[in-house]
Amino acid sequence: MLKDIQKILSPETKILVLLNGLGHEDIVKQYVPEKNIFIGNTMWTAELLGPGKIKLLGSGSVVLQNIDASQTAAAQKLAALLTDAGLNANYSTNIRYDIYKKATVNATLNTLSALLEANIASIGQTRTALPIIKTIIAEFVAVAAHEEIILDADELIANIQKTFDPAGIGLHFPSMYQDLIQNHRLTEVDYINGAIVKKGQAYGIPTPYNALITQLIHAKEDLLIPTK
Amino acid sequence: MLKDIQKILSPETKILVLLNGLGHEDIVKQYVPEKNIFIGNTMWTAELLGPGKIKLLGSGSVVLQNIDASQTAAAQKLAALLTDAGLNANYSTNIRYDIYKKATVNATLNTLSALLEANIASIGQTRTALPIIKTIIAEFVAVAAHEEIILDADELIANIQKTFDPAGIGLHFPSMYQDLIQNHRLTEVDYINGAIVKKGQAYGIPTPYNALITQLIHAKEDLLIPTK
Repeated sequence: MLKDIQKILSPETKILVLLNGLGHEDIVKQYVPEKNIFIGNTMWTAELLGPGKIKLLGSGSVVLQNIDASQTAAAQKLAALLTDAGLNANYSTNIRYDIYKKATVNATLNTLSALLEANIASIGQTRTALPIIKTIIAEFVAVAAHEEIILDADELIANIQKTFDPAGIGLHFPSMYQDLIQNHRLTEVDYINGAIVKKGQAYGIPTPYNALITQLIHAKEDLLIPTK
Repeated sequence: MLKDIQKILSPETKILVLLNGLGHEDIVKQYVPEKNIFIGNTMWTAELLGPGKIKLLGSGSVVLQNIDASQTAAAQKLAALLTDAGLNANYSTNIRYDIYKKATVNATLNTLSALLEANIASIGQTRTALPIIKTIIAEFVAVAAHEEIILDADELIANIQKTFDPAGIGLHFPSMYQDLIQNHRLTEVDYINGAIVKKGQAYGIPTPYNALITQLIHAKEDLLIPTK
């Protein structure tokens, strides 16, 4: 996509990456100078109705930060702009922590929902959900520590356990379930669990749970997505 | 079960364990003297029609061996007896290898079939089946080596790859799929992958792939088997 839009990128064009998962900025860096890249994530739940047509569900928030130290003011201006547009954006001073935190939710609930074909509350009721989630997160904690980002495993686990409540979002089927099981579309697993595996390989940190989860999702993609 | 039948076991009663999986003799030892225990496995594919009523499919074989060194003659007699009954039994001089070999088939194809809800040929066509199978088997090899049983990983992998052929047994859905997906029954995963995890813990050998596979099967049991 970045290759396709390169003609319309000027030296002043700023790119804000609000995607799920990790490592997107490393790809964007290949096309855009670092000072123009801003990263973050969003807790707005949305549906894509068609090209340029998005339906927002409920209310949410956005956090973002510059990756180049000189661009703090620009990032703060960007957050204010999004807030003015009604998107409840905040400047984060620790965006990598925020990104890792959301990725642990996606790496556990999204993948388990797609693999087990169950909603969040049902996953939470199985005897092995918690040990699986704890091990996946332990691998995230080890990889993030290598990048000097100190994740709090207990906080991340508690954050996930809260979602099991059927009175909250427990009855929700996460986006990876919607993509793979309902719509037979490819998933973003390579940017979530797969990104941890890649980082783990680069740092010499074992990440077997994230590796097997990634492989099983790919196997399921091969089984469910019709070949052209 | 062994507790229930203890009244009818005499000091001469021999027990032949032909179950899938590992470690059964350790349980039987609690009830029966070692010299009366014989272990092995069977490649006969069978259906249980009802109590005492079994339908054999195609043709197969049995291998067995004594676990007490003094009982070689008795084991050979047992094999001859089963062969006379038409069951094509052979005395094995390396039964633990044979048991591990069959367990690697069950640990990979049975579990992947139940997890991915696919037959053997379809599993074989996914891009990640082979790397998953290789890692599961590498863990088996490490655990068996600790028991001085040297498994040949390449032979075991080739043995499994042969089954992918749709003209052979590729279109078959293994017993764990039948138990869990079709009949919503508990599986034997604790005696296959789970047994490797338990041995790995005892020996200090990491077995994360077998651990996660076991946990995912248990999660699926909890989701699919109706509670009383």
